[in-house]
Amino acid sequence: MRQRYKPWADDYLKEKNYIVLEKPSLHKGEWKKVFGNNNPIHVEIGSGKGQFITGMAKQHPDINFIGIEVAKSIIVSTVQKVDEETLDNVRLLNEDANDLLAIFEENEIGQIYLNFSDPWPKNRHEKRRLTFRSFLEQYQHILPDSGQIVLKTDNRGLFEYSLVSFSDYGMKLKEVNLDLHAIEDEANVKTEYEEKFASMGHVIYRCTAQFSS
Amino acid sequence: MRQRYKPWADDYLKEKNYIVLEKPSLHKGEWKKVFGNNNPIHVEIGSGKGQFITGMAKQHPDINFIGIEVAKSIIVSTVQKVDEETLDNVRLLNEDANDLLAIFEENEIGQIYLNFSDPWPKNRHEKRRLTFRSFLEQYQHILPDSGQIVLKTDNRGLFEYSLVSFSDYGMKLKEVNLDLHAIEDEANVKTEYEEKFASMGHVIYRCTAQFSS
Ligand SMILES: C[S@@+](CC[C@H](N)C(=O)[O-])C[C@H]1O[C@@H](n2cnc3c(N)ncnc32)[C@H](O)[C@@H]1O
Ligand SMILES: C[S@@+](CC[C@H](N)C(=O)[O-])C[C@H]1O[C@@H](n2cnc3c(N)ncnc32)[C@H](O)[C@@H]1O
Repeated sequence: MRQRYKPWADDYLKEKNYIVLEKPSLHKGEWKKVFGNNNPIHVEIGSGKGQFITGMAKQHPDINFIGIEVAKSIIVSTVQKVDEETLDNVRLLNEDANDLLAIFEENEIGQIYLNFSDPWPKNRHEKRRLTFRSFLEQYQHILPDSGQIVLKTDNRGLFEYSLVSFSDYGMKLKEVNLDLHAIEDEANVKTEYEEKFASMGHVIYRCTAQFSS
Repeated sequence: MRQRYKPWADDYLKEKNYIVLEKPSLHKGEWKKVFGNNNPIHVEIGSGKGQFITGMAKQHPDINFIGIEVAKSIIVSTVQKVDEETLDNVRLLNEDANDLLAIFEENEIGQIYLNFSDPWPKNRHEKRRLTFRSFLEQYQHILPDSGQIVLKTDNRGLFEYSLVSFSDYGMKLKEVNLDLHAIEDEANVKTEYEEKFASMGHVIYRCTAQFSS
């Protein structure tokens, strides 16, 4: 995603530190308290400019959402959306998702979304893909038994890789959709990338993979 | 596949009964004797007019191939190809693949190919799909531990269904290709349907699913 230098971003994020939490590890095991209720908590990794997570939060007021986005200049857009629409069920983390066990307790998360994750097409970058085995290990740890990952992408290579990676890890595919936009589906909240690539004529893939219980 | 009435088909198949074997169950557990060697035996189910199985037989002289095709008027085309090219490593069965255990012994088959299998798109016809659980049970029985099924199709619904069905059965996906023709691959032997649908601009899917050992 295009990153513009935003000199005001630091100050802005500090000001909105009730939306973008500064020391997420302090809340490990206590995320229900952060939201002030017992609703399930869903996490999106690489939440970008936040169209998906804010759309989901409005569609599902009984679910809490945490967006993790490493790029400061990008996450600010999500903060603005959450702030303007006063979405109480969204929190954001300006973090790299490479140490989720420092942030979440076992079973603390209900579901994980990966939307248009960076494909890292070169073989030597396989480990960076968010569906690489080491990431799946993290996800399994913070999800319950039979916890699910939902992946959307237009990237054929990443999608093919991820199906095999999930399967190799012993996960089961509960759903595979090889042309998500073939049928209009109100329940599908589109991401920024999804809108852009679909309008360019790309096919959008989605799958739901479940850890074995 | 279009079936034309071929009044001469019966006589022709009888004449060529060293290629299309008449009572396949007689050879159960003895298929190596039929071929007169110890080479692995691969099976294609729904072999149609035989372009794939004859192409594979030429490309892999050290593998024996058995094509199973229920339609008499279609299988004759394969018999003609095998006859003209005197392919010693191909045998054909004019049978419905719904009782493979009557034909093959446990572990007797090395690999199974499903090419452009009838999609049976209606939910109530799910049981007829060649990747329905009851078929997978049969395949598992006649394949060794870690035996593989290779599926090619242009049918999105069948492919999506099959990935989930394989996964649900506990099989692992070893390969998923969502645009087989994106790269020219000499090793890929095209079927009749594959050529036809690819020329119409359809995407061709392929996957390899492995039974767990
Ligand atoms: C291609 S963009 C997609 C953005 C958004 N999900 C969408 O579909 O429009 C990928 C995003 O993931 C973020 N990202 C990549 N790796 C990450 C990581 N390890 N942890 C957190 N965010 C990451 C990037 O900064 C970028 O904003
Ligand atoms: C759509 S055609 C594809 C033919 C060929 N595999 C190709 O790719 O060009 C499907 C073929 O499978 C055969 N078939 C369908 N169900 C079968 C079954 N249960 N047993 C054997 N053959 C079957 C049909 O008669 C038909 O010839």
